[in-house]
Amino acid sequence: MIPFQMIVFLVIFLQSYTGLAYDPDPVNDYCIPRTEFSSIFLSCKNTSLVTVDDFIYSGIKDPGNFKHTGFSSIPVSSTVFPGLNTLGMSFVRADFDVDGVNVPHFHPRATETAFVLEGKIYSGFVDSGNRVFAKVLEKGEVMVFPKGLVHFQMNVGNSPATILGSFNSQNPGLVKIPSAVFGTGIKEELLMKAFGLNDKEIAKLRKKFVPQ
Amino acid sequence: MIPFQMIVFLVIFLQSYTGLAYDPDPVNDYCIPRTEFSSIFLSCKNTSLVTVDDFIYSGIKDPGNFKHTGFSSIPVSSTVFPGLNTLGMSFVRADFDVDGVNVPHFHPRATETAFVLEGKIYSGFVDSGNRVFAKVLEKGEVMVFPKGLVHFQMNVGNSPATILGSFNSQNPGLVKIPSAVFGTGIKEELLMKAFGLNDKEIAKLRKKFVPQ
Amino acid sequence: MIPFQMIVFLVIFLQSYTGLAYDPDPVNDYCIPRTEFSSIFLSCKNTSLVTVDDFIYSGIKDPGNFKHTGFSSIPVSSTVFPGLNTLGMSFVRADFDVDGVNVPHFHPRATETAFVLEGKIYSGFVDSGNRVFAKVLEKGEVMVFPKGLVHFQMNVGNSPATILGSFNSQNPGLVKIPSAVFGTGIKEELLMKAFGLNDKEIAKLRKKFVPQ
Amino acid sequence: MIPFQMIVFLVIFLQSYTGLAYDPDPVNDYCIPRTEFSSIFLSCKNTSLVTVDDFIYSGIKDPGNFKHTGFSSIPVSSTVFPGLNTLGMSFVRADFDVDGVNVPHFHPRATETAFVLEGKIYSGFVDSGNRVFAKVLEKGEVMVFPKGLVHFQMNVGNSPATILGSFNSQNPGLVKIPSAVFGTGIKEELLMKAFGLNDKEIAKLRKKFVPQ
Amino acid sequence: MIPFQMIVFLVIFLQSYTGLAYDPDPVNDYCIPRTEFSSIFLSCKNTSLVTVDDFIYSGIKDPGNFKHTGFSSIPVSSTVFPGLNTLGMSFVRADFDVDGVNVPHFHPRATETAFVLEGKIYSGFVDSGNRVFAKVLEKGEVMVFPKGLVHFQMNVGNSPATILGSFNSQNPGLVKIPSAVFGTGIKEELLMKAFGLNDKEIAKLRKKFVPQ
Amino acid sequence: MIPFQMIVFLVIFLQSYTGLAYDPDPVNDYCIPRTEFSSIFLSCKNTSLVTVDDFIYSGIKDPGNFKHTGFSSIPVSSTVFPGLNTLGMSFVRADFDVDGVNVPHFHPRATETAFVLEGKIYSGFVDSGNRVFAKVLEKGEVMVFPKGLVHFQMNVGNSPATILGSFNSQNPGLVKIPSAVFGTGIKEELLMKAFGLNDKEIAKLRKKFVPQ
Repeated sequence: MIPFQMIVFLVIFLQSYTGLAYDPDPVNDYCIPRTEFSSIFLSCKNTSLVTVDDFIYSGIKDPGNFKHTGFSSIPVSSTVFPGLNTLGMSFVRADFDVDGVNVPHFHPRATETAFVLEGKIYSGFVDSGNRVFAKVLEKGEVMVFPKGLVHFQMNVGNSPATILGSFNSQNPGLVKIPSAVFGTGIKEELLMKAFGLNDKEIAKLRKKFVPQ
Repeated sequence: MIPFQMIVFLVIFLQSYTGLAYDPDPVNDYCIPRTEFSSIFLSCKNTSLVTVDDFIYSGIKDPGNFKHTGFSSIPVSSTVFPGLNTLGMSFVRADFDVDGVNVPHFHPRATETAFVLEGKIYSGFVDSGNRVFAKVLEKGEVMVFPKGLVHFQMNVGNSPATILGSFNSQNPGLVKIPSAVFGTGIKEELLMKAFGLNDKEIAKLRKKFVPQ
Repeated sequence: MIPFQMIVFLVIFLQSYTGLAYDPDPVNDYCIPRTEFSSIFLSCKNTSLVTVDDFIYSGIKDPGNFKHTGFSSIPVSSTVFPGLNTLGMSFVRADFDVDGVNVPHFHPRATETAFVLEGKIYSGFVDSGNRVFAKVLEKGEVMVFPKGLVHFQMNVGNSPATILGSFNSQNPGLVKIPSAVFGTGIKEELLMKAFGLNDKEIAKLRKKFVPQ
Repeated sequence: MIPFQMIVFLVIFLQSYTGLAYDPDPVNDYCIPRTEFSSIFLSCKNTSLVTVDDFIYSGIKDPGNFKHTGFSSIPVSSTVFPGLNTLGMSFVRADFDVDGVNVPHFHPRATETAFVLEGKIYSGFVDSGNRVFAKVLEKGEVMVFPKGLVHFQMNVGNSPATILGSFNSQNPGLVKIPSAVFGTGIKEELLMKAFGLNDKEIAKLRKKFVPQ
Repeated sequence: MIPFQMIVFLVIFLQSYTGLAYDPDPVNDYCIPRTEFSSIFLSCKNTSLVTVDDFIYSGIKDPGNFKHTGFSSIPVSSTVFPGLNTLGMSFVRADFDVDGVNVPHFHPRATETAFVLEGKIYSGFVDSGNRVFAKVLEKGEVMVFPKGLVHFQMNVGNSPATILGSFNSQNPGLVKIPSAVFGTGIKEELLMKAFGLNDKEIAKLRKKFVPQ
Repeated sequence: MIPFQMIVFLVIFLQSYTGLAYDPDPVNDYCIPRTEFSSIFLSCKNTSLVTVDDFIYSGIKDPGNFKHTGFSSIPVSSTVFPGLNTLGMSFVRADFDVDGVNVPHFHPRATETAFVLEGKIYSGFVDSGNRVFAKVLEKGEVMVFPKGLVHFQMNVGNSPATILGSFNSQNPGLVKIPSAVFGTGIKEELLMKAFGLNDKEIAKLRKKFVPQ
């Protein structure tokens, strides 16, 4: 009758929370979200419960599985690596099969620096004056993609390639142009007018990008 | 005798600078860029030379000329209205002919609030989870487009329509998806793979958007 | 048996919380506060519960009721339009009867751009060097009021006038000088000294602005 | 004939500038503006020319001269103490004669913490809901005035009093309500309506605050 | 008997929350954390429960007790003075016995302005180019320590000395070099290599700074 | 002969400039500093002169030369890679010989994410409560060092190791504890008191770190 668990639960809750922190300028050293409630409140683990493992991420040692474009990415935001919470940074591992493509996309909330770990990668971005800056990068080279601008990459070497991207936001966001435009329910006439395509052409594009 | 080099030097200098300004937190009441040198240095007019007209913009009383998509916009950033410099805001007047379309686009550096001055406008945006939020807005309604997300509009009424958009950046930037993707020199193979189109289809799209 | 204290505790909790504050730089696409608990915790609705109506505001199609100064305003901050939460913008509709006055006031947390929807409006602000920048604006003109500076408006035309103001904060705040200074309990002697008025004069002013 | 000094001047100029820094988040350790050109360009002294004296201010050891309200203040922004440039802080020394008053005012760009160095000071602020928070502070007590809110002080002790105020902006700005409202050229009718005063009363107030 | 609704309510609550966003620019006048729950949620007191005492701190009228280095400090962050919450400032009172030393330390999240209330204090900082800026300050002088740089102080007068420090963060943080480096469990070999000391010398230093 | 206009022009220029305002949020897509004047003014290259190479850095393909601690680092801030200007990011390549040590240090203006490119590296940081978080990282693991906190690394494997660090500032700054404390001119007595060492011990440490 008495919801005993709830009492226990609330008591624990009352005792193990610490404070809060904000981004971009943190107001604490760090703020590890409490895993059991991270889906409800913005709350930090009591610092005595924080361990070194909260600040280490081991999930990008190996590439992910390639998708149909010969591309695989493992984005690591504060959602999957809570130690990044309030610290204003995150990162991504991107792997490219031969000819693999990272489709034109942008991050609404961050600049990216992309370091080539392996391979030869055609890499570029478009500025808001519609000028393309693109070049083939080699292992050890770094390219910067300014905040919010459309960028893209393609493996132009003869073997798989890998990139390590870093972001100046704990959650940079990701908008992939093809699926955002053709894989969502934007009115057909609007897309026809916008791209100068007929209904069949739009329908064909939609088929590819609307999730089944 | 005449310091010729210096003249040359200054002339070059005057021609090849672009301009900068930062925000959100101003450290002065305002900073009207000095018009004669705004293209060279980041500098403010002496306050005694500032007049009320520096803070007023009169260029959006009337619509601009419609382009091929039945759409016309007059963006007013700090470049055309210097009084906005350091103040973290700017705006745009957008006019739509019947069926006119504002193609899918985004602003890399600002949220937008769009107020319908006249007409009925289908209006929406796509979030980074590829979900569309779209609806027909009537005169007097306001829609918010979150920072950096793709949005679009179409006049679905029987008469011209007008929108007043406001931004929380003095220079929000504008990336129009169709021309940024198909009107620039991104490698053809990359676009083919990214959109699942063949070379003829890409060529057709390019023809429309690459400036002649 | 029944954890009565807990019920009481939660009820109090629900009633005595106010709100929270943060950002220009969002870390999510958007964050619609959960309506049932928005008064207790800063929490976002699950994105699957968010609808397009969360991003549209329809409450400023018509003017509000004029007050004694022939003025009416409908401020729309994140409090009344939760879709603005974390997005760094808000707005206001202001209507002026003939001779109507928007008294000298300022917004502690935002710059304002004011667009004249209708009418002729004398409009201005005072900088921190006590210089006034004021002029009569016509329909379609825009004036910018820098962050935190005192500004004011008066309908100087022969018919009602309307302004749409936009702010670069989700909650700009509003301090109306007459009521903030004379309508609150600031020590009488301090006001006498500050304004060089005698006790009767201060008393007269107070009568007008202290809420009954 | 040859403007030799100018050549020398430019050469020096080219050699002794270092970089730039921004506020609130600096991008250098510090940036001491170059005194000879501080009025033209935002430029930092070459670090080798920076001395410890650039970071020390000695001008508030003694009070300033009392004005007619029995009040004297020495505001120290980055304008008078260049070492504060880009560091996001500044301060003020305020001295009060017996009954001296610091008139209702606000700082558009900063929160203030005010520490009582000497005396008993009635001190308070008005929030944007027109609620006054005021109390008599004693030596050693500290009051915080939130960003952009109207605040005021009066010496209510029997001897002079002193306050040290600190700000979280290198240039907080200062708007004194009486002179900003009545000492500037705001249209008379607007003020009459706003304060419910007749033309003689407004004229009387204006006389006091308009600089002669 | 069983508060069924509450269980349901909490379960829903646990499942439907998403995330948050923040920043140093406040979006309310102030936000006094609710004392009974401040350790659990980031929540503000209902403004009707806020009193003037929430904005006043009276705990630094007198010096604290001197420690072994002849130094005593009372840091006042938002943790001990909740009225500072969201307002971006905090402060510290530091007292020095004759020869008292404030060991080399830094604040990871703030610039500091230090005002000498009493005494003669040798005071300085080291920039990131390893240059020291140090000097003896007298009563009434102010020194600024740029954000994140190592600084230090020593009473070089014949009587006790006092400093009032102000910070542009509600929680600047404090890292004391000797204890952070030698009083923690950093691997011995690393410290030996880093400081060029042998194991006995490191052991001696550790003994002093590792808490017993 | 005498360029009179230029003199007049400069004189006017000198007299009519006022000030500036800034922030980390960029207001342009990018801003490549003009190389010939980057040491004088904050100015961007005309966008037509910007090339893709401005956004690519090729200088960290190979390790630098090891110093006496068996450590080598190539920090890449906006100073050496101008394309980073205004974009809020930078990076570093760090190489470790066997037993090589990156001495305790911190970055005053940035969080760091460190990715292990090769080797086994003992890596850790100290929070402001003097707690150490340290562990041996393997190839492909990432550790985050919160903004402004002291951190350190040592190669504990049998072969050279390499790390790629990323920062959320274009110029994070670097303070190496041993040289900042013992290699600068901080008063000897202060250091003796601070570290509990005698004059010979301090002298020995100084010898190691004061540049000859």
